[in-house]
Amino acid sequence: MSPFDVIKPIRVILSEDKELYSSLKNIFGFYPGNIFLYKLAFRHKSLAKELNNGAKVSNERLEYLGDAILSAVVADHLFKMFPIKGEGFLTEMRSRIVSRSALNKVSQKLGLDKLIQANSEGNNVYKSMNGDAFEAVIGAIYLDKGYQFTRRIIIEKVIQQHFDLDELENNDTNFKSRLIEWAQREKRIVEFLLLSEVGHGYTKQYVVEVLIDKQAHGKGRDYSIKGAEQNAAMKALIELDISKA
Amino acid sequence: MSPFDVIKPIRVILSEDKELYSSLKNIFGFYPGNIFLYKLAFRHKSLAKELNNGAKVSNERLEYLGDAILSAVVADHLFKMFPIKGEGFLTEMRSRIVSRSALNKVSQKLGLDKLIQANSEGNNVYKSMNGDAFEAVIGAIYLDKGYQFTRRIIIEKVIQQHFDLDELENNDTNFKSRLIEWAQREKRIVEFLLLSEVGHGYTKQYVVEVLIDKQAHGKGRDYSIKGAEQNAAMKALIELDISKA
Repeated sequence: MSPFDVIKPIRVILSEDKELYSSLKNIFGFYPGNIFLYKLAFRHKSLAKELNNGAKVSNERLEYLGDAILSAVVADHLFKMFPIKGEGFLTEMRSRIVSRSALNKVSQKLGLDKLIQANSEGNNVYKSMNGDAFEAVIGAIYLDKGYQFTRRIIIEKVIQQHFDLDELENNDTNFKSRLIEWAQREKRIVEFLLLSEVGHGYTKQYVVEVLIDKQAHGKGRDYSIKGAEQNAAMKALIELDISKA
Repeated sequence: MSPFDVIKPIRVILSEDKELYSSLKNIFGFYPGNIFLYKLAFRHKSLAKELNNGAKVSNERLEYLGDAILSAVVADHLFKMFPIKGEGFLTEMRSRIVSRSALNKVSQKLGLDKLIQANSEGNNVYKSMNGDAFEAVIGAIYLDKGYQFTRRIIIEKVIQQHFDLDELENNDTNFKSRLIEWAQREKRIVEFLLLSEVGHGYTKQYVVEVLIDKQAHGKGRDYSIKGAEQNAAMKALIELDISKA
């Protein structure tokens, strides 16, 4: 038996990892420290590895962790990017960024989908597999490199490159139209009432109230009537608990 | 006019802050850097301060931030404390720690309730005011001192001192009893079926399935039948979307 028979399997393993190393370097701009964390992050539960003690190991724990870290970083980033916006706005913006559909897309844009190990027998399609793997990778980066590093990666490689906060914010027009769409479905009547104008000149603000079937459901204030309507509609959506609809 | 007439108001302001400084030092063991963040953290929305531009300022933005940071730290802590538990367990444990009722209690135990500034006219009682202030303080610490510092405070001064993870875990008996209580309310029949035993000796595990009206609703595996029942019940609660009930 030549020494290569022993060395070869090791080399194969090494070269497999080398691919993952370089993929991650290309995607995120850094070389992983503990590569096993990242391998685990790409192991979908359909290919869970069974341990001696019967426990099944997949990326689900890392996904749980990454989800929480991602939420914290996005919360912090939005807090600083929008210093005068209320928590209703920030919560809504965050839920748009960390929504399953947004994360599935980002995961594919980054090319993480190509790294996922899943059981594709019988053409199983796992709807949120890509977004789950993205969150699991965030969990892996956090364990491997710490919070500040993960924060920088999320902001620089994900949010700044794949989310347009202005566009996401202007989707605010969504609030009003979403409320109107909801009302049409539910056969309710929505009205926006200009209650008052506060201040004057550059600091002049408008206060708008949303009425649903003549009942008040939230006031909004902004430097434009349009903005005040959006804020009021957002509050109504939250109050009626239909902001995710 | 003596110089004291000028100095006095400054001294009064300073002494007011001095109290807050020393309260926070007593509670958390550190002196705040930027005291204004902490003053804001204790300003309930019923006493929101109106700025020149009409914006109202209260602790709601800090609460939004602190909520996210707290969730991340607790997720991380549980991840490390329970290295072989699945994400369902971790998620359930976290939701117990960060539940509004748990945070209201912790806030009072820490004595944060005494520092809150709220409008108590007409005997207004704000149900979650204490928990909200706790989260806002976490947001303030994070902005003032950074993630690692906040993480240490949450673990050492909050979780380790005010949560008994063993007890919280053993409340797992909750899973089974909660499922049974739910079934009684809904007039459904719950059964726990021992499906199989895996391995032997020290590594022997039991697999239990939950049946509700004879329909399978989740399998659990553990080193004891009791544990396997808990895990199965937990999965059923999650599947039926009644895990928060």
